[in-house]
Amino acid sequence: MPEQPELTIQGWGPTRPGDPPPTDGDLANAVPKAARRYLAKELGWSPRPTPPVAVDDITLAPSRLSDAARTVLVDLVGAENVHTDREARLRRAGGKSYLDLLRRREGDASDAPDAVVAPGTTEETAALLAACSELGVVVVPFGGGTSVVGGLAGIDPDDRPSIALDLARMASVQALDVPSSLVTVGPGLRGPALEESLGRVGLTFGHLPQSWEFATLGGYAATRSAGQSSTGVGRFDDLVAGLTLATPSGVLELGHPPASAAGPDLLALALGSEGTLGVITELRLRVRPKPLSTAYEGWSFRSWAAGLAAVQQLARHDLLPDVVRLSDPDETRANLLMADGRGARALRGSLRLRGHREGCLLVLGWEGLPTIVRARSHAAAALLRDGGGIKVGRRVGESWKKHRFQAPYLRDTLMDAGLLVETLETAATWSALPNVYDAVRRALRDSLTRQGRRPLVMSHVSHGYPTGASLYVTVLADRDDALPIQQWLSAKRAATDALLAAGGTLTHHHAVGADHRPWLEREVGPLGVEVLRAVKERLDPKGICNPGVLLPD
Amino acid sequence: MPEQPELTIQGWGPTRPGDPPPTDGDLANAVPKAARRYLAKELGWSPRPTPPVAVDDITLAPSRLSDAARTVLVDLVGAENVHTDREARLRRAGGKSYLDLLRRREGDASDAPDAVVAPGTTEETAALLAACSELGVVVVPFGGGTSVVGGLAGIDPDDRPSIALDLARMASVQALDVPSSLVTVGPGLRGPALEESLGRVGLTFGHLPQSWEFATLGGYAATRSAGQSSTGVGRFDDLVAGLTLATPSGVLELGHPPASAAGPDLLALALGSEGTLGVITELRLRVRPKPLSTAYEGWSFRSWAAGLAAVQQLARHDLLPDVVRLSDPDETRANLLMADGRGARALRGSLRLRGHREGCLLVLGWEGLPTIVRARSHAAAALLRDGGGIKVGRRVGESWKKHRFQAPYLRDTLMDAGLLVETLETAATWSALPNVYDAVRRALRDSLTRQGRRPLVMSHVSHGYPTGASLYVTVLADRDDALPIQQWLSAKRAATDALLAAGGTLTHHHAVGADHRPWLEREVGPLGVEVLRAVKERLDPKGICNPGVLLPD
Repeated sequence: MPEQPELTIQGWGPTRPGDPPPTDGDLANAVPKAARRYLAKELGWSPRPTPPVAVDDITLAPSRLSDAARTVLVDLVGAENVHTDREARLRRAGGKSYLDLLRRREGDASDAPDAVVAPGTTEETAALLAACSELGVVVVPFGGGTSVVGGLAGIDPDDRPSIALDLARMASVQALDVPSSLVTVGPGLRGPALEESLGRVGLTFGHLPQSWEFATLGGYAATRSAGQSSTGVGRFDDLVAGLTLATPSGVLELGHPPASAAGPDLLALALGSEGTLGVITELRLRVRPKPLSTAYEGWSFRSWAAGLAAVQQLARHDLLPDVVRLSDPDETRANLLMADGRGARALRGSLRLRGHREGCLLVLGWEGLPTIVRARSHAAAALLRDGGGIKVGRRVGESWKKHRFQAPYLRDTLMDAGLLVETLETAATWSALPNVYDAVRRALRDSLTRQGRRPLVMSHVSHGYPTGASLYVTVLADRDDALPIQQWLSAKRAATDALLAAGGTLTHHHAVGADHRPWLEREVGPLGVEVLRAVKERLDPKGICNPGVLLPD
Repeated sequence: MPEQPELTIQGWGPTRPGDPPPTDGDLANAVPKAARRYLAKELGWSPRPTPPVAVDDITLAPSRLSDAARTVLVDLVGAENVHTDREARLRRAGGKSYLDLLRRREGDASDAPDAVVAPGTTEETAALLAACSELGVVVVPFGGGTSVVGGLAGIDPDDRPSIALDLARMASVQALDVPSSLVTVGPGLRGPALEESLGRVGLTFGHLPQSWEFATLGGYAATRSAGQSSTGVGRFDDLVAGLTLATPSGVLELGHPPASAAGPDLLALALGSEGTLGVITELRLRVRPKPLSTAYEGWSFRSWAAGLAAVQQLARHDLLPDVVRLSDPDETRANLLMADGRGARALRGSLRLRGHREGCLLVLGWEGLPTIVRARSHAAAALLRDGGGIKVGRRVGESWKKHRFQAPYLRDTLMDAGLLVETLETAATWSALPNVYDAVRRALRDSLTRQGRRPLVMSHVSHGYPTGASLYVTVLADRDDALPIQQWLSAKRAATDALLAAGGTLTHHHAVGADHRPWLEREVGPLGVEVLRAVKERLDPKGICNPGVLLPD
């Protein structure tokens, strides 16, 4: 396996050793002048240095793990796989949400685990969970550490000591069944290593979320992730044929490919369980041949409504491509300003002349056999033209593809310059989506507008389905330097209330974590929460499995 | 709604009023002479009359429902919706498996409910379940009554009185959201009525199991059904966007289209729950535009192995059509003999000349936009030819399509003439499928061979997936007139043990019911069974919801 890049303690990145950094941390280099001016004017933002404290100045409480407990863990996995040093604990403290980064940048690591323990097998993991259940030690599974919803918060109502159960030792490709298009992997494996391994035999997995460089396959399963090509290849859920879940009460082998009608699908209970029922220790995933052709294209629509209607027509007629991204007017404008360069300026001019000054850009990505890609993209083009779409060539699509993993790196730079930068996401049926869009924007604007300052709320449809689509929202605002955490908590609360009331789902692919759990009951009802609790009580009777997430207190 | 055909008490059919019967019950008319001769020789079968007892002679015990209980039920749904008459009870006795028919033909209706109660709404259903939980009355939901796995067995370890909860009053199309491709329906609605309603606005649902004329949409959800076009349009699971489940503990609203990552998917617990958690009272289903073109085609392969390998290549390369049926040599031979006529004879001769005497016929059905169907079927044809396939034209496919709902009618005729006729099904990965096929055939042959008599075991792949396929097995044998039930129970037990040991699933689309429940633990493990029990205890603490199925005692 190639050397893997690691996330920094207070932000994203760095890149893989040897690669140039996507930005050098300097605002002037990272954001073109026109975009900086636009942001300053829109937001009422004065760029100013707001750097993090030095890593050495982060406060970390002493480990609360007792010597007796430590001895038990060492007996199970070996001393070399139990760590209580500062570096190990800081690296597994929380995830990478805006709130996580704010805390870490302020020097707060109160959510750090008391120890980091790395089992090597399903059996070791099951034994560890049984022992921790006995010892009263909370277990938070740790894969890539990229949660943006407080999935690694480690909150425990009983304030017991906690360990991060690190999955890095279970990170190999274990078996490949080519005729059945199935690969068996460890939960700690990352996407790039899986793709490299599959690529050698002409296969691909194709799950590409923005966190792809760092996130693990076990994490995707635990959170029901979606990737940038999920419209075509399916959500992560759709790609899991089976998995092994180690729990304090024993081991479950779930899933029976290709399909079964033998009672309710228990695999669906493990997917999205976010570490609350146990730890995923093995995955059987569906792979596919590498596509023979890949084509990205850009389209422009006069308005958000026209763009949505056109994508909905593709969806209804089973003509969605692998990648679908429709940006609203605010995101389209920002993307064109960020792209800078002569090409982007020429495109802006040409769209203005054709009445698309307030337009929406749509990126489509087609993959597969050339004849089928051609037949499908031609049929789709006819529908898009009927809907008023103008084809703007391949550059828009290729440019998106080139920069698709960069946003979280840029966030670090923007946070250094006095900005609030966060995202949220939801999904709704095609009928409900326009209302959800309006409701979220209104809530965020109302919450974040104060004394001449107002937020920029940029949205895009990131995944299409026959029945609806997801909505991904990026918020920029001048940070409230006195109360930055409260500033975002209020905005997030308002946005979540609004999107649920309008018919959106609590989360389309980021999961529940600690941040969304107050709303879970609104999504699944009080009896739904009770069903989840009944399952948890059976598998994790002492409540040691990631108690701070998913289920409300 | 048009007048709906009803199943007979002792068999299948009859057809929709006005249609001619598919067979007139006369063996000589139903089975061509060459096929009769072939069967007699293969099976060691002497055709003989083995008619059912007269319906009036079926034994039915008096209803055990107390007057007090009856009063409570009448108060909830009205006297006109509570029935204890002989006809109502006999029509809801059990399902339509070979064993069900044997019992009913022998005059045994000991599995009949004590009353039939038909609520009209979710609220009435929930109230009914709460009342029955209080009264200690078992509730078996009744939709189309087409279960072939004892799903309506009504067995209760405590021998409490039972009611059939008839869904016929909740059988309407309630709402249609065309932009979101969603229709909301009652659970008692049948496929033909849904298709007729959708067809008026150019839409289709497309779920077509062999029981399509009689089965209900609620039943498909409760059993995780698959239809003849499921390879293309998806299993029934895939088509459910949401549902309402009334339980003794309250009502669950499940599913959040288009997709959600808000914790485990609880909808998956309701799908396949077979009435053990409560009653499905409403469904939101995904619809699609009627396909603009439909093309069926036939292919021949020299051997089962060659046919399987070719279909697996289509699967791996995402080139499976909507309908895929690959018959093994035994089924191919029987189908060609049954087709009789000049065309079938000419085809047999031509295949013999080309070395396909022991060959396998493959039926493919393509649906969709003409340009895309053409691109996909051309790409598929290249792979099939590489695998040694010979295209045998459209007649084989069209003939299959024409007769696809007839087998259960024919079964009645064959059962009248001294034959055992039953089917079973499983699924396995492409790698395991050949072993599963061999194991099931061997087990059935060993069990059903005695004194010069042996079974005919005919199989086909009925659904393809990237990771594997289903296997559908039809068994014919000379009936043991002394112990017909034991004859099949032994064979079924041997076949189930064999297919599980070889890596097959307990059931691909017939569900667990009473017949498969002894093996559920082998499929999901003891802890998996415990998880299901924990859910059931939360929702149905008194165990009144269809206690005889799914979960082992």
